[in-house]
Amino acid sequence: MAPTAKEVYIAVIGAGGVGACFLKQLAYLAKSRPSPRIRLCYFAIIDRALYHDDYSDIDIDNALPLLESNGFDPPQIPNVIKYLSTAPGRVIVVDNTASGLMAASYPEFLKNGISIITPNKKAFSGSYQLWQDIFTSASAGGSFVYHESSVGAGMPIISTLNELVETGDQVTLIEGLFSGTMSFLLNKFSPLEGQGGKWSVEVKKARELGYTEPDPRDDLNGLDVARKITILARLAGLPIESPSAIPVQSLIPKELQTATSSEEFLQKLPDFDHILEKEREEARKANKVVRFVGKVDIMSGEAKVGLEWFEKSHPIANLQGSDNIINFYTKRYGDLPLTIRGAGAGGDVTAMGVTGDLLKILRQV
Amino acid sequence: MAPTAKEVYIAVIGAGGVGACFLKQLAYLAKSRPSPRIRLCYFAIIDRALYHDDYSDIDIDNALPLLESNGFDPPQIPNVIKYLSTAPGRVIVVDNTASGLMAASYPEFLKNGISIITPNKKAFSGSYQLWQDIFTSASAGGSFVYHESSVGAGMPIISTLNELVETGDQVTLIEGLFSGTMSFLLNKFSPLEGQGGKWSVEVKKARELGYTEPDPRDDLNGLDVARKITILARLAGLPIESPSAIPVQSLIPKELQTATSSEEFLQKLPDFDHILEKEREEARKANKVVRFVGKVDIMSGEAKVGLEWFEKSHPIANLQGSDNIINFYTKRYGDLPLTIRGAGAGGDVTAMGVTGDLLKILRQV
Repeated sequence: MAPTAKEVYIAVIGAGGVGACFLKQLAYLAKSRPSPRIRLCYFAIIDRALYHDDYSDIDIDNALPLLESNGFDPPQIPNVIKYLSTAPGRVIVVDNTASGLMAASYPEFLKNGISIITPNKKAFSGSYQLWQDIFTSASAGGSFVYHESSVGAGMPIISTLNELVETGDQVTLIEGLFSGTMSFLLNKFSPLEGQGGKWSVEVKKARELGYTEPDPRDDLNGLDVARKITILARLAGLPIESPSAIPVQSLIPKELQTATSSEEFLQKLPDFDHILEKEREEARKANKVVRFVGKVDIMSGEAKVGLEWFEKSHPIANLQGSDNIINFYTKRYGDLPLTIRGAGAGGDVTAMGVTGDLLKILRQV
Repeated sequence: MAPTAKEVYIAVIGAGGVGACFLKQLAYLAKSRPSPRIRLCYFAIIDRALYHDDYSDIDIDNALPLLESNGFDPPQIPNVIKYLSTAPGRVIVVDNTASGLMAASYPEFLKNGISIITPNKKAFSGSYQLWQDIFTSASAGGSFVYHESSVGAGMPIISTLNELVETGDQVTLIEGLFSGTMSFLLNKFSPLEGQGGKWSVEVKKARELGYTEPDPRDDLNGLDVARKITILARLAGLPIESPSAIPVQSLIPKELQTATSSEEFLQKLPDFDHILEKEREEARKANKVVRFVGKVDIMSGEAKVGLEWFEKSHPIANLQGSDNIINFYTKRYGDLPLTIRGAGAGGDVTAMGVTGDLLKILRQV
């Protein structure tokens, strides 16, 4: 057997909902897997960083309070890369931020032999040039890049799609409900039984319950779904230039796109309730419900994100809560798809996808 | 980086439905992945084997006709192990048989540094002692053992369960429909709409269509499902002694267990149609359908295999064709499970699980 790494150096960036959960899972992993030894050597949030010049350990169990008490101004990204690239072992950066700046720097990390794990969609759904740079840089640097949680949180979506492709199957169509927020909203607005509430009221409620972004327009514009479709389409072999190349049906009324605040948006939204309520009524007359889905036909190259009607017995109509569902149609699977369904958002399950990616690298070093 | 293997030596045993599909996928893999180089050094079926003393390549594309024309009497398993353990590189045995003899020999292969990949359920659902021997032998020998296709064919069932456990989630309950044959049969016998046929007629039809084993009792006894539940329960941390420790509702009438042939069994089966037809009627009065499911409660240690009634809107009631569905309930996922659904049988999709396991090893060597 080839000699294996005895230690890996982990740099964690971000300590929000996912980041905090990941730290707990990292602590579990460090205790449950003696080899390779997991050493946290760098920990940073937007305005604080913690590391030692000799790469000595940051106590994972106390990383957050230590960052609080001992942290200092974070270095610029090029200096982070410089610090990490001279570590005395393999380095893995876990980027739990949603930072576009970090995303744009992945090729530089990877080129320097530093692996990347992240739930951050930005890099993989940015320009196709960045996508290519990321994977050629990883190849050149002998580093790894994993992003399972960028679609469907901790569910095995990306790994499954990769395995279909790598074993020689032909993926023909990918469709599903990719947004926990949209799932929750439409399940309430267009329920299987009974009458849903007013659209603007359901949006307000979802926001109050924390199911939407602080500005609900960041969900309603459909861009999150378009980003996920972009990632899956590219993995299936379709070189989509960017999410803006996909026709997306935004649920933001044209007149409210320029509203200066989310408050103004929510205040004026009731004036436009009739649009979606008309669609719901028409669907109801056809004994169907309305859902917000994404799909990409790999064979024709056509992709689409927006509202569709579904029979009440259809699996996409039958989701509960904020669940996601993803159908892979492939040559091998034939007429019936391979389907994965479950929570597509949440700190713990998203962090699990990140931790699972870390396990994949630990097995390979 | 640690130096990586340049070549791996593959031994393929079995060339039935799964084996033949696997060979095609292996040929694809050998062409699409230049490194490590894949070398087929041993190929055998029950009464023929092909290998060269100098471990030189068997042409994967022509392996079957070569075995036909140049094959000889296969060596005994200990001699196969001897041959493989002196190969000039890492060796992976792909066991595409259903042989109990092979299964019992896994520890010996693994101890000698020879990795095992298989869709064969026997080893992992045999005695708990064999289960333990397999994993301690792999650890001692520095070898790998993967068996994704032993449950749910190529679907990511085992890898998902392993990741849940390894990242520190607590799996609480696993339930589902684990037999493509039982799925097909019950979907016909107790359909969502309309009247199903007579039980004995549906069994005969399913056999004629190739959906059952040559002797349908090998499906109807429920043992296949009990084996799969045993494997999943063990992976989730429950040391089930053997599948016979699980209460299994056999669909073979007591009086027909001793029928000397499948023909005699099928001939006498109509005399017992009233039993299942009564159950179907009772379910129908409750507006439910009957399905054959397996479940294990990891927390209480209780497992069960047999018929259950489901609301027509329930995902388990709504399967089509011979699809499987598996629900993982875990602490992280909360009230709603992580669900995987799709083809649970078939040469190509089963072989894909095997090829996917091979990819996992190739990445690690």
